[in-house]
Amino acid sequence: MQPIRLGLVGYGKIAQDQHVPAINANPGFVLVSVATQGQPCAGVENFKSLSELLENGPPVDAIAFCTPPQGRFALVQQAIAAGKHVLVEKPPCATLGEAMALVSQAQQQGVTGFFAWHSRYAPGIEAARDWLSTRTLQSVQIDWKEDVRKWHPGQAWIWQPGGLGVFDPGINALSIVTHLLPLPLFVESADLRVPNNCQSPMAASIKMSDPQRLDVRAEFDFDHGHDELWSIEIRCAEGVLRLDNGGAVLSIDEVRQTVSQEGEYAAVYRHFQQLIGDKASDLDLQPLRLVADSFFVGSRTLVEPFYD
Amino acid sequence: MQPIRLGLVGYGKIAQDQHVPAINANPGFVLVSVATQGQPCAGVENFKSLSELLENGPPVDAIAFCTPPQGRFALVQQAIAAGKHVLVEKPPCATLGEAMALVSQAQQQGVTGFFAWHSRYAPGIEAARDWLSTRTLQSVQIDWKEDVRKWHPGQAWIWQPGGLGVFDPGINALSIVTHLLPLPLFVESADLRVPNNCQSPMAASIKMSDPQRLDVRAEFDFDHGHDELWSIEIRCAEGVLRLDNGGAVLSIDEVRQTVSQEGEYAAVYRHFQQLIGDKASDLDLQPLRLVADSFFVGSRTLVEPFYD
Repeated sequence: MQPIRLGLVGYGKIAQDQHVPAINANPGFVLVSVATQGQPCAGVENFKSLSELLENGPPVDAIAFCTPPQGRFALVQQAIAAGKHVLVEKPPCATLGEAMALVSQAQQQGVTGFFAWHSRYAPGIEAARDWLSTRTLQSVQIDWKEDVRKWHPGQAWIWQPGGLGVFDPGINALSIVTHLLPLPLFVESADLRVPNNCQSPMAASIKMSDPQRLDVRAEFDFDHGHDELWSIEIRCAEGVLRLDNGGAVLSIDEVRQTVSQEGEYAAVYRHFQQLIGDKASDLDLQPLRLVADSFFVGSRTLVEPFYD
Repeated sequence: MQPIRLGLVGYGKIAQDQHVPAINANPGFVLVSVATQGQPCAGVENFKSLSELLENGPPVDAIAFCTPPQGRFALVQQAIAAGKHVLVEKPPCATLGEAMALVSQAQQQGVTGFFAWHSRYAPGIEAARDWLSTRTLQSVQIDWKEDVRKWHPGQAWIWQPGGLGVFDPGINALSIVTHLLPLPLFVESADLRVPNNCQSPMAASIKMSDPQRLDVRAEFDFDHGHDELWSIEIRCAEGVLRLDNGGAVLSIDEVRQTVSQEGEYAAVYRHFQQLIGDKASDLDLQPLRLVADSFFVGSRTLVEPFYD
């Protein structure tokens, strides 16, 4: 089978750190072109826009989107209309409506769409899901805390309308929890702490539930001076499951478990390849819906200004 | 056929002004009980809670929900779990997640669910829909402006988290437009003006679009001192359609058209009766999604405080 010819749009931090190394390590793909307005990607043809890539570049079968979520919708729409399979970094779009429109469009066009919730591919997740599948759930506590200055230096779009603020990392936790739990979650209340010179929250406390009234709580903090804390603790009648380091480490009753050796983005691209082969899509809206509902129902408190 | 035995929860302004008169005028229904914490409803059995109504009241087939949207989810869930058909006033829930959970639950339980977007039953709407169905759409302008002190006196829940502020009337316009247009809408940007002592906007400007890039704009204002303005103007290649008075008046190229003589809530209950007879549901999430996305992607500006 010929490798899938891939174009990539938005050669920023996540593309450089994760996507391109994962693509290059997977013989099922060949990266043939990049559209970016910043520094070019070595070893492939570079273009200033997706339009130029599609019109003037070598043929591609699929496009990976790594631009910020605002403005991404029109680009993904253009790629699907051109019959390309699409992999879309998280969060997939700036609004639920845009994301739902892409779901419909991909279905109508018959291409593979993939909203790549990369944290679902962290090494401990599948083992956690297996263990949980036969347990009786009692409560879930998410703590997702990091220093925005360390992890998102100069990324002003995070604080603008349509940017997610602390939900940009927090949606990773939500993507994991919704993948682990059997029933859909919904937001009961949210307390959003918003810097008075920004549109998006610096910190948030969220109370969620499911149709069986499972108690799910999340603490998100983007101004966390210590080492980052990316943990999910799920209490069950039979014991306590804990994910640390964003899902890389799995413990059950404080005993560390054996987990997958595959990297997150390696697994992301393996899954994308599988979806294309199966002519299937994986376009889960639930993490984005939880964020939209947190903004919708949330109570806002203004806090001190943020300067990068 | 026996009339449908109906219970009603939340005997406030909308129940007194609209629901109970419409129910009493429709021989297909008989109102047998009311659960309310305020003044009782004359001529039927009154209870302090839905639980008491279900446990101690006369048997009912269906429940109409007229309480504020915050806290309504658990009540509707309880009614569906008890096998009752449910009519839910707009907005159906405080979050999209709750509304989606009710859609699933009604489907699983096999009862009729109806998110009653009452403005879709305004007299001019069906004639407008018919006319539009063969026209080429160009743009849509919504102006929905009223005095909150006149229309929502003392309704503090509107300004609290999960309350919609000016989107409480505005969602009526959104429910009409989404009913009239052939394709789903999504929010591109929203400018929200929020009183600095409230959580919800007093005014909003929203830019929407559909997959064919239709230009849809809305101006919502809750601090409109003049007579209320509830209008929707839809420009087509073939002419201009205009709805005024919240959909009661329909004009095409400034010529007033003949419209239905039936009142909004009379039509709402006729539709509910039909759904129950057909064992069908009508649970459209789109208006609520547009509001959630406006809060999600919206840019907030603090404005002067609001005092009722």
